[in-house]
Amino acid sequence: MPPAPLVVKPWFDRLRIVLVRSRNPLNIGAAARAMSNFGFQHLRLVTPWEPSYLGARSAVGASQVLLNAQVFGSVAEAVADCSLVVGTSAVGERELQHPLHGLEQGAELMRQGLAAAPVALLFGSEKFGLSNEDLSHCHWLTRIPTRDQHISMNLGQAVAVCLYELARGGLNALPASGQTPADAAEIERITQVLFEALCISGYVQSAGEAAAQEKVRRLLRRLNLEKGDAELWLGMIRQILWKTKHPDNDEK
Amino acid sequence: MPPAPLVVKPWFDRLRIVLVRSRNPLNIGAAARAMSNFGFQHLRLVTPWEPSYLGARSAVGASQVLLNAQVFGSVAEAVADCSLVVGTSAVGERELQHPLHGLEQGAELMRQGLAAAPVALLFGSEKFGLSNEDLSHCHWLTRIPTRDQHISMNLGQAVAVCLYELARGGLNALPASGQTPADAAEIERITQVLFEALCISGYVQSAGEAAAQEKVRRLLRRLNLEKGDAELWLGMIRQILWKTKHPDNDEK
Repeated sequence: MPPAPLVVKPWFDRLRIVLVRSRNPLNIGAAARAMSNFGFQHLRLVTPWEPSYLGARSAVGASQVLLNAQVFGSVAEAVADCSLVVGTSAVGERELQHPLHGLEQGAELMRQGLAAAPVALLFGSEKFGLSNEDLSHCHWLTRIPTRDQHISMNLGQAVAVCLYELARGGLNALPASGQTPADAAEIERITQVLFEALCISGYVQSAGEAAAQEKVRRLLRRLNLEKGDAELWLGMIRQILWKTKHPDNDEK
Repeated sequence: MPPAPLVVKPWFDRLRIVLVRSRNPLNIGAAARAMSNFGFQHLRLVTPWEPSYLGARSAVGASQVLLNAQVFGSVAEAVADCSLVVGTSAVGERELQHPLHGLEQGAELMRQGLAAAPVALLFGSEKFGLSNEDLSHCHWLTRIPTRDQHISMNLGQAVAVCLYELARGGLNALPASGQTPADAAEIERITQVLFEALCISGYVQSAGEAAAQEKVRRLLRRLNLEKGDAELWLGMIRQILWKTKHPDNDEK
């Protein structure tokens, strides 16, 4: 009896593979090829080295995915329509600011997310991985279990293994709850407004702005806000911000 | 709670990754790197393009696996010490002469084999995959589930996915039975002796020798001979061969 073939499920269409600052055109091409193999379509590139991106179009069988790839200037823009943003990490001992799941469990959680709304899976550059700023856009991190002595995987191979695991267990994706989660653009709007309020209020000193902004971003993503609640929060914090800017005014 | 780290089990040391006629040095390097990531050490190359093999030594973090890689002139030599030989295949509709298992089940069967004795996992060339002659050395085939419209994976990525799946499920490898299986060198000796007997006997016509030899090879591997039985078979067929060569002699 032949093995069961891969069945591309409707939720495959909700995954966005986001390569951040990839340098090697062969790796972009390899990522696109693995996506084509496993039935995923949406490739997003954040500030790739321009020539390398063009070179990748020659990768065998990857053409359709590559031709449709979108290029963004920032992680925030690349994940704007996603309700769940997951980072891949090879960090070993480095202190983590995020929950970390092994790939098997991570894939299960991603499938739950994909049942409800778009999900982004981020891969960093070959040399430096994801920066703290990149990670601050993530809800949590996932890691492919590798040997402690040789943790860092090739980018194209890491993408292939993650997609294999996602597709493998994907009998049926069912949402964990009936709520509609807020998307990343909504959460980022709250982040910006809250951060401005914190700066104006003097809570954030100008010296440590970058680190503070990342902290706020993580803080908000840990809330896992539902859509309606996100709107409420945005309205509340906007109002507070307005007040900080117009301290003498009693009304909006 | 951090995810469980990869634990390299003793049976990892019994796996041989065999790349047959690989052309691209980057793919050999990528295969070696994935082996190092997942804790497998034994890389064997069958008639690689010589310059490409040397070029692969520069792959990041793959050096130890690559430096220890062995080069062989034939598949038979490369798998001689293995009791189970598994081929990877991307064939879709092509008629198969072998049992075919999806990777998840294939990995489970390989782990059972690895608990008892060395196992070889074969990957063909980037362009043509494994030939019928290569496949005739295999007990069965395994396939990574991919989309029907884009079955063929990049070599380095295919190796990474197979090793991830092998290591992933490898809590404990226990042999399926208490028997010691015959190794590939023993089975190949029987193949050669039987084939010579079939040629001399006129069962095999010289016109179709290559196909017939592959058929005989597959036939013997399907027997899954236990070590003691393999010796018995070799003795019996040797005796028959001797008789076909010395028809006038009544005694050996």
